[in-house]
Amino acid sequence: MRDIERIGVYTSGGDAPGMNACLRAVVRTALANDLDVMGIRRGYEGMIEGDFVEMDRRSVSNIVQTGGTVLKSARSPAFMNPEGRARAMRMLKEYKVDALVAIGGDGTMRGANILHDEHDIPVVGCPGTIDNDLYGTDTTIGYDTALNTAIENIDRVRDTADAHNRLFLIEVMGRDAGFIALNCGIGGGAEMVLIPETITEMEVVKERLLSLMSAQRRSTIVIVAEGDELGGARGIEKALLDDSDFNDIDLRSTILGHIQRGGSPTASDRVLASRLGVGAVESLLDGHSEVMVGLVNSEVKLTPLRNVWGRKKSIDYDLLKLTQILS
Amino acid sequence: MRDIERIGVYTSGGDAPGMNACLRAVVRTALANDLDVMGIRRGYEGMIEGDFVEMDRRSVSNIVQTGGTVLKSARSPAFMNPEGRARAMRMLKEYKVDALVAIGGDGTMRGANILHDEHDIPVVGCPGTIDNDLYGTDTTIGYDTALNTAIENIDRVRDTADAHNRLFLIEVMGRDAGFIALNCGIGGGAEMVLIPETITEMEVVKERLLSLMSAQRRSTIVIVAEGDELGGARGIEKALLDDSDFNDIDLRSTILGHIQRGGSPTASDRVLASRLGVGAVESLLDGHSEVMVGLVNSEVKLTPLRNVWGRKKSIDYDLLKLTQILS
Amino acid sequence: MRDIERIGVYTSGGDAPGMNACLRAVVRTALANDLDVMGIRRGYEGMIEGDFVEMDRRSVSNIVQTGGTVLKSARSPAFMNPEGRARAMRMLKEYKVDALVAIGGDGTMRGANILHDEHDIPVVGCPGTIDNDLYGTDTTIGYDTALNTAIENIDRVRDTADAHNRLFLIEVMGRDAGFIALNCGIGGGAEMVLIPETITEMEVVKERLLSLMSAQRRSTIVIVAEGDELGGARGIEKALLDDSDFNDIDLRSTILGHIQRGGSPTASDRVLASRLGVGAVESLLDGHSEVMVGLVNSEVKLTPLRNVWGRKKSIDYDLLKLTQILS
Amino acid sequence: MRDIERIGVYTSGGDAPGMNACLRAVVRTALANDLDVMGIRRGYEGMIEGDFVEMDRRSVSNIVQTGGTVLKSARSPAFMNPEGRARAMRMLKEYKVDALVAIGGDGTMRGANILHDEHDIPVVGCPGTIDNDLYGTDTTIGYDTALNTAIENIDRVRDTADAHNRLFLIEVMGRDAGFIALNCGIGGGAEMVLIPETITEMEVVKERLLSLMSAQRRSTIVIVAEGDELGGARGIEKALLDDSDFNDIDLRSTILGHIQRGGSPTASDRVLASRLGVGAVESLLDGHSEVMVGLVNSEVKLTPLRNVWGRKKSIDYDLLKLTQILS
Repeated sequence: MRDIERIGVYTSGGDAPGMNACLRAVVRTALANDLDVMGIRRGYEGMIEGDFVEMDRRSVSNIVQTGGTVLKSARSPAFMNPEGRARAMRMLKEYKVDALVAIGGDGTMRGANILHDEHDIPVVGCPGTIDNDLYGTDTTIGYDTALNTAIENIDRVRDTADAHNRLFLIEVMGRDAGFIALNCGIGGGAEMVLIPETITEMEVVKERLLSLMSAQRRSTIVIVAEGDELGGARGIEKALLDDSDFNDIDLRSTILGHIQRGGSPTASDRVLASRLGVGAVESLLDGHSEVMVGLVNSEVKLTPLRNVWGRKKSIDYDLLKLTQILS
Repeated sequence: MRDIERIGVYTSGGDAPGMNACLRAVVRTALANDLDVMGIRRGYEGMIEGDFVEMDRRSVSNIVQTGGTVLKSARSPAFMNPEGRARAMRMLKEYKVDALVAIGGDGTMRGANILHDEHDIPVVGCPGTIDNDLYGTDTTIGYDTALNTAIENIDRVRDTADAHNRLFLIEVMGRDAGFIALNCGIGGGAEMVLIPETITEMEVVKERLLSLMSAQRRSTIVIVAEGDELGGARGIEKALLDDSDFNDIDLRSTILGHIQRGGSPTASDRVLASRLGVGAVESLLDGHSEVMVGLVNSEVKLTPLRNVWGRKKSIDYDLLKLTQILS
Repeated sequence: MRDIERIGVYTSGGDAPGMNACLRAVVRTALANDLDVMGIRRGYEGMIEGDFVEMDRRSVSNIVQTGGTVLKSARSPAFMNPEGRARAMRMLKEYKVDALVAIGGDGTMRGANILHDEHDIPVVGCPGTIDNDLYGTDTTIGYDTALNTAIENIDRVRDTADAHNRLFLIEVMGRDAGFIALNCGIGGGAEMVLIPETITEMEVVKERLLSLMSAQRRSTIVIVAEGDELGGARGIEKALLDDSDFNDIDLRSTILGHIQRGGSPTASDRVLASRLGVGAVESLLDGHSEVMVGLVNSEVKLTPLRNVWGRKKSIDYDLLKLTQILS
Repeated sequence: MRDIERIGVYTSGGDAPGMNACLRAVVRTALANDLDVMGIRRGYEGMIEGDFVEMDRRSVSNIVQTGGTVLKSARSPAFMNPEGRARAMRMLKEYKVDALVAIGGDGTMRGANILHDEHDIPVVGCPGTIDNDLYGTDTTIGYDTALNTAIENIDRVRDTADAHNRLFLIEVMGRDAGFIALNCGIGGGAEMVLIPETITEMEVVKERLLSLMSAQRRSTIVIVAEGDELGGARGIEKALLDDSDFNDIDLRSTILGHIQRGGSPTASDRVLASRLGVGAVESLLDGHSEVMVGLVNSEVKLTPLRNVWGRKKSIDYDLLKLTQILS
């Protein structure tokens, strides 16, 4: 194995709170091990365009608490084909980058995987995505923050729902996975949770809602994952409005949307991001590659990149049962 | 003038953070002046149905910091016609309520006005609405909280907008008034603000956005009041997407929605609500009626109810100029 | 084993955010299993005095998001001796309470243990304490909230520390354990962390601080656990002020104090509390007793009460190493 | 009057949230009027040392939402004597600074005043201090944020106070003025407020507290301004602990301290800071000098610097009465 003297680090895909804390840990761990660090701006797009910037201790001062990513992120259609990746590799060589730390989600890991396969550059991934849908880590960087942002705002909606005894549909993020919705349902004290992992009959939903609304003469909150097969909050709202049984019910829906992507990371996300950033650099130095660092049962673990994006991470079905007991 | 021995208090219309702090002040001031207090639940609807509850010091303990309204709110179609109001008045007499404190917005003040005119019951209003569109007070109860909720979430959106150099349209509340949008624009560091009070040409908006996006290669934030004549965030998004000049621009829109109605009131809203609640009861005791208490230039002032809902409160056009200088 | 028809539930010791979410889960799970539930107010003191209240679904409505404990808590010197405990048992019998769920920390678990040993009443504990110092669970209810409250306020202190290039000592809770301090150090981007688990020489601290302050001409943050053997923030401040080498350094200290005990629980604490509350009742129904429910590696696990308070939970020494790499 | 081509801007004294928003407004307004802008780092100390940095639009990007001050602040003993000020003036001339905008509190305004008197350089002040104790503006930049930070943390303390029926003394900032304490008292629902502006007999305090604690069997919160003549929270705690009547009362005290100085500015502080920053530059361009811009009755007003620090701003005694009615 060749020696590593200079690493490159980048953030890619959807940004997530804690990416900056992770970047800080990567940079400082690398410097503490006498490595040079190049920041690659705007993910794979910047890699292809040679948008590189040297990082020192000060470049990552005072960012542990910030949302977004100081290295920016971008989509890169050019990286989708072999020519783009070859160009990226030429840039990495030009800048004498010996190894990579990739911070991002599913697509980022897949990109790192293929770059390694085609060009044999050592690469270690860090799971940064609010969706928590990466195999190989109990939670991803940004997920805890997104959850808290969602719940804080669900609390606000419940204030106004309660004031009017309303039925409220609240849509949270999660195109393919119900992690955020499920935990928001429990933490937000919701009466029902609809997620992509389970198929729900619209008739069952209606019946349950009518029974809840008549029983309690109070507000009722339904959390809907954006990827739920009934069509998100708007889809369900439409179906309910079309049903005359719901004529007398004061119904509203709201989509929390992009606010869930930003904000100062929580304590838990900062510590997770820091541990994984340190772990990524130490793994590279130990000769590992084509792996993602994750936290599994409170310990740093490595998982082959191929499994990270190839396998489906399951929600905890016990939690689903919980929402029924508690509502 | 007859003596007041028992007052009734209610919250009506859209709920606003700080209504509970106001209610607490009304109850405690009344009790301190040896008055009885009846809480009327669900606004005019509860008044008609006789949904009354006696209030003591403990009924309003530990609510100064809560959003929503413990007395609940509701729409009341029945109160729209004279028979409904006559029934409401019979209930007030039955419960020996001699005078009323009405907490709410535009419609609430109008309802109080007409009830007084038809049935001659002393009534004083407190301005509770997040929209800040009531004449007779510099700010309304709930407005400062809504503003802070909006800005906190705009900050989050900017994190992710910056990470991707995106153009973001953020819709805030304000069906008829641009108060929230205008102040969010300045406080949120937005590049453009669109409000109902001014007419904006879509072509001018497009030109400005294209120039901003090309000039800075950074994110651009546009704050849109829901009542803007161009159709809110969705309307503008559609117009931009239809224009081929915007093909290469990464454009997103988000609607903050009902989160702006809830949450723990800010310091300023709690103090305002407390002052106006005290002021309302003291005004009744001083023999005033058919007025709303407001805070004008830091002092409690009374304004005839007729003017409160009849006159249009103007935004501060200096602030509009500010958004252009600062962006 | 006798059948359980009615359970009693109480919160005891220092209150922690999430206790109400736990209580809600206990009550609703019990009701869903056709058990009666008695709330015991003010912990062991209320148990002795017979301060019992029947709980239904509505008693725990709208509390999942609140700090503190609706059942209140108290110290109970009377429960320290056998007579007090015998009186408590008589009350439990009088109210036909067949089994107990105890929510609290170290002392609460010890009390439950001894009550069971002397009077053979089934009891299951839930770990509620901000200190995270209970053996048998990865984290305790309230810990994540306390951590986030501390870090949010450390962020604020860093703003002002940075503005003046100051050296700031910030004391966080943790009389016997460094969990909060250690994680605050990493998440808050602190330059140094002092905890009870490790012995630090004052001379080493001074040397490191002088080197940091001279190297960077920036602010420096030191997180001190209240139980650190050097005497908390005040103790260290005094030692530094007595040393002439620190004459030119702008030094301040602040004690975060009781703010770390309150506030709305985080997403993670609400979900943890809900899972453990459900788990406690289900464990009782499964015939378990004299155990605490905890979450270990994401699964609900039972640990004998004796071990919970008898064994010392260790901090993660890897995290300690991390603070040195990252600062 | 000579023409202004380049202005200098600095922050000085205790930092306050919103100083960065003000700085941003100063820089962008100046640039919009074709002026050059020099940032003077570390207040008067940096002015003397020539610690100047040129500012463009990008220097103030993305800072409207940050606490602290990007220009830093410092104490300057050297500026206290005429030689120091003469040196400062030489630096200003060397860097061709024609006029100054000073952002800060009492001492900053006094310094600007004397610099103008001795060296005849145009100067306009912006009121930046959390204490709100500057004559010539209804509120100062940073005050609303400090108030909200204090109240948010008082809410947390009340959670734990309520859980134990405790008497809590909470000390907030305010060495010479009770603005923060008074508004925290009302907004935080406190039972008593002690401020420097009024003299309180310890015996009266004790009597009131005993009556409150016995009457309600609930928690009692006392807000104490740090400058209260009874010695802040510690002083009062000591006096109570020395009195045997308080032996049975569960008494705690906490000092909120420096957390009140930092954090992201509120909506209201951001808008205020922006308006005053614009107003300061426009005032200079209109030929004004030796004045502070303030917001009085919602309008930008100028006040001679001499009055700003020479006159005492009064608290609103109506608010003091309010705390008695409401508690």
